[in-house]
Amino acid sequence: VAGRVPVLVGVTDTSFVESVNLAGHAADAGAQAVVLSAPYYFPAGQPELLEYIERITPELPLPLFLYNMPSLTKVTFAPETVRRAMDLERIIGIKDSSGDMVYFHTIRQLAACRNDWTLLMGPEALLAESVLAGGQGGVNGGANLAPRLLVSIYEAARDRDMVRVTALQEQVLELRRLYEVGRFGSSLIKGIKCALSCLGICSDVMAAPFERFHEPERREVQEILIQLREKGVIPS
Amino acid sequence: VAGRVPVLVGVTDTSFVESVNLAGHAADAGAQAVVLSAPYYFPAGQPELLEYIERITPELPLPLFLYNMPSLTKVTFAPETVRRAMDLERIIGIKDSSGDMVYFHTIRQLAACRNDWTLLMGPEALLAESVLAGGQGGVNGGANLAPRLLVSIYEAARDRDMVRVTALQEQVLELRRLYEVGRFGSSLIKGIKCALSCLGICSDVMAAPFERFHEPERREVQEILIQLREKGVIPS
Repeated sequence: VAGRVPVLVGVTDTSFVESVNLAGHAADAGAQAVVLSAPYYFPAGQPELLEYIERITPELPLPLFLYNMPSLTKVTFAPETVRRAMDLERIIGIKDSSGDMVYFHTIRQLAACRNDWTLLMGPEALLAESVLAGGQGGVNGGANLAPRLLVSIYEAARDRDMVRVTALQEQVLELRRLYEVGRFGSSLIKGIKCALSCLGICSDVMAAPFERFHEPERREVQEILIQLREKGVIPS
Repeated sequence: VAGRVPVLVGVTDTSFVESVNLAGHAADAGAQAVVLSAPYYFPAGQPELLEYIERITPELPLPLFLYNMPSLTKVTFAPETVRRAMDLERIIGIKDSSGDMVYFHTIRQLAACRNDWTLLMGPEALLAESVLAGGQGGVNGGANLAPRLLVSIYEAARDRDMVRVTALQEQVLELRRLYEVGRFGSSLIKGIKCALSCLGICSDVMAAPFERFHEPERREVQEILIQLREKGVIPS
């Protein structure tokens, strides 16, 4: 990215030590911040989660974003836990992938006490409304495929250009078709990787336990990409 | 354990490579088998899970037990997946912690095709009925505290001594009181660790993100231990 945008690196692990190791590696590699979800095997209660955050933050060599991803971790960063995390200077924001806009509004209100706090949206379909609601941006899977589109809807929302937001939102929603090719929870990451491979941007090798799409799914992705190009969702 | 019982080591990780590394370490340390659950961050579909098992099994230096723990992994080893896993010689059994006895019966029926397959029960409260139903034993948290009791109920079930099973089951259920001291999902592991510490068997240090019980909970555990001793659940 050559310094044009900040690089945030996920360091979540069920092992405290491994998270710290990953953060060290991210810092050595030039990342600007690390991103940490709740440990995701034994679910922590909120006081346990807060203790965990308080213990790990001083061990990390970079500023920290919380990553709220309850569908995968089984644990939400409850608003009161986030409020307490805001007392730690090194925690500078949250990426919210819950898809729960009421939660987002709640966190946005709490963040009023920290003018250096950044609220990032996970699902791209909610990027515009989160920015309209006071968010600062997103970390969106579809931005790998359609960076211009996602930047445009971000700018439109930031500028309160509702005509443009409304039009671009229809385009953003088109990306979902790529995520509906697979049959399982992995369909989103497989669809993105496969599309990136079809576009010649990167390989579609997946981390275990997942395998890349087979030929029939890949052909389906290629078909969708043609349509997305025609509609101007992704560049020609 | 000085060879008196087999040692099975959990090697589950979300990283394929880490699971293989852990299995190598377990083998070097003299374990008899390793135990593997479904990867527990992105949930795998059943065909993905089967591919994962088929790919990792040849990489492991020890025989393998599957570990069915859907409450923590979000993924069940579906019966059809277990049946396919039985085609792999190196997979020699399953530990079932689902608490679902219908599932257990289903797997037990499937296992009829492998006379070397071992069915182990996770929750100790279901050990007796699983052995009565054809299971071979358990890997039970409470056995750390009350080994004699758990061996006794295992033997009673194996010998179809229903009078004894019925009496011992009441004692086994008493152990649950230790698991109800904490407030969160961690209460079981915290309760066991705290009780082991009170009994002088080992330290109650917990792996992150968890901390040992504080003094009020510890006093509660001590109180319960006194009562469990009076009832003969744990040794005096």
